[in-house]
Amino acid sequence: MEVRIAVSKVKKYATSNSGDTVEIVERPNGGLSVVMADGQSSGRGAKWISTLVVRKVIALLAEGVRDGAAARAASDSLFTERGGKVSSTLNILSVDKQTNTLVITRNNPAPVLLAENEAIYVLDVLSQPVGLYRDTRPIISEISLTEGLTAVVFSDGLVHAGSRTGESLDIASCLQELLEEENPTPELIADDLLHLAVTLDQGRPVDDVTVVVLRVTGSTGNLTRRMSVQLPLDS
Amino acid sequence: MEVRIAVSKVKKYATSNSGDTVEIVERPNGGLSVVMADGQSSGRGAKWISTLVVRKVIALLAEGVRDGAAARAASDSLFTERGGKVSSTLNILSVDKQTNTLVITRNNPAPVLLAENEAIYVLDVLSQPVGLYRDTRPIISEISLTEGLTAVVFSDGLVHAGSRTGESLDIASCLQELLEEENPTPELIADDLLHLAVTLDQGRPVDDVTVVVLRVTGSTGNLTRRMSVQLPLDS
Repeated sequence: MEVRIAVSKVKKYATSNSGDTVEIVERPNGGLSVVMADGQSSGRGAKWISTLVVRKVIALLAEGVRDGAAARAASDSLFTERGGKVSSTLNILSVDKQTNTLVITRNNPAPVLLAENEAIYVLDVLSQPVGLYRDTRPIISEISLTEGLTAVVFSDGLVHAGSRTGESLDIASCLQELLEEENPTPELIADDLLHLAVTLDQGRPVDDVTVVVLRVTGSTGNLTRRMSVQLPLDS
Repeated sequence: MEVRIAVSKVKKYATSNSGDTVEIVERPNGGLSVVMADGQSSGRGAKWISTLVVRKVIALLAEGVRDGAAARAASDSLFTERGGKVSSTLNILSVDKQTNTLVITRNNPAPVLLAENEAIYVLDVLSQPVGLYRDTRPIISEISLTEGLTAVVFSDGLVHAGSRTGESLDIASCLQELLEEENPTPELIADDLLHLAVTLDQGRPVDDVTVVVLRVTGSTGNLTRRMSVQLPLDS
């Protein structure tokens, strides 16, 4: 089997910084984790918050700390630093090679979509962002890594796309349509969802939008690991 | 302008772990850094060393520490931890949006290739790996970010490819040939160099091989940031 991950992100129209932060890191016992945070409000302040949360989680994951404990620590850390006045959403998507599972950690009111082949499940159990209270716990789901598994994680910019004109995106239906195509790449899914959101916002996103798509596919027989980044310098 | 980065890596034949570690992180003042380390020997021990070095550098870069200071700190840290008995190479490739430059930091006897359009420069000033001595300093080069700039960073697995049969790869000539093609993507360059190395090693790499390629291209007008990862689960 092979895991492919794609991240596509745009910032809110006319802001200096995206308040969303995403990093992908290797896990010390094999596999990798995608960590996404969306800091409260937008611009530089939001970036500071989401960076703090992501850094904290990454540092702990690198030491072998479990995802749930890392999320709780990030919440306590932000709560301590800012006295409960500032929140951030947090999602961790981990491919754990020790347990051969996908671990989905949510501290985010926005749902996570999970698809096994073309059947879509919405993970939307009530979940709080980190930083506002002591003892904020994440919602954790763990699923065996099997061929055909797809997970889609996004920041609330995707949920609120179109709000300027009272429209909104039915993200699960869009994903369903995409999955009915011939084995779409995660890049295609992430770009398409982002494009739909930006179009609903008439090309001027009302919020930072980040979409993370993970797919488990059959082995290609090629053992090369690959990573790539595309960074527009005026973004 | 737009920056595109591709990383391709394979591990040494019949080892459990690659001793090479690469991570890409956002810089707090804009831009990003690619951090690559190759720990002494191979397998689990080498992975432990390269992970330690990369984590140290990433944590410091995230706090806004300059690349050179982060490299020196990583060296001192490994020296202190292992008493100068263990070394690791270290390369940092940073796109610094504050200065609009590409900053190339080398603690690696292996050279870095730099191309401005099709003219290739080999950065091979004598450089020591980190961890063996107190006061190990990196070699730093800083170049303006301009369209057509290409940087290629690699671990010594690329340099030693073919050593089993007394052959070797003329990496600069291979890069020259690739650049003479119509505007190759960094993914194509990284995959081609890796493929040449693995072929010289008859499909059984004599060492971990990592290739990082960064290209600066014209703006596409699209402000989406993208990141993607491909992870074969049995690698």
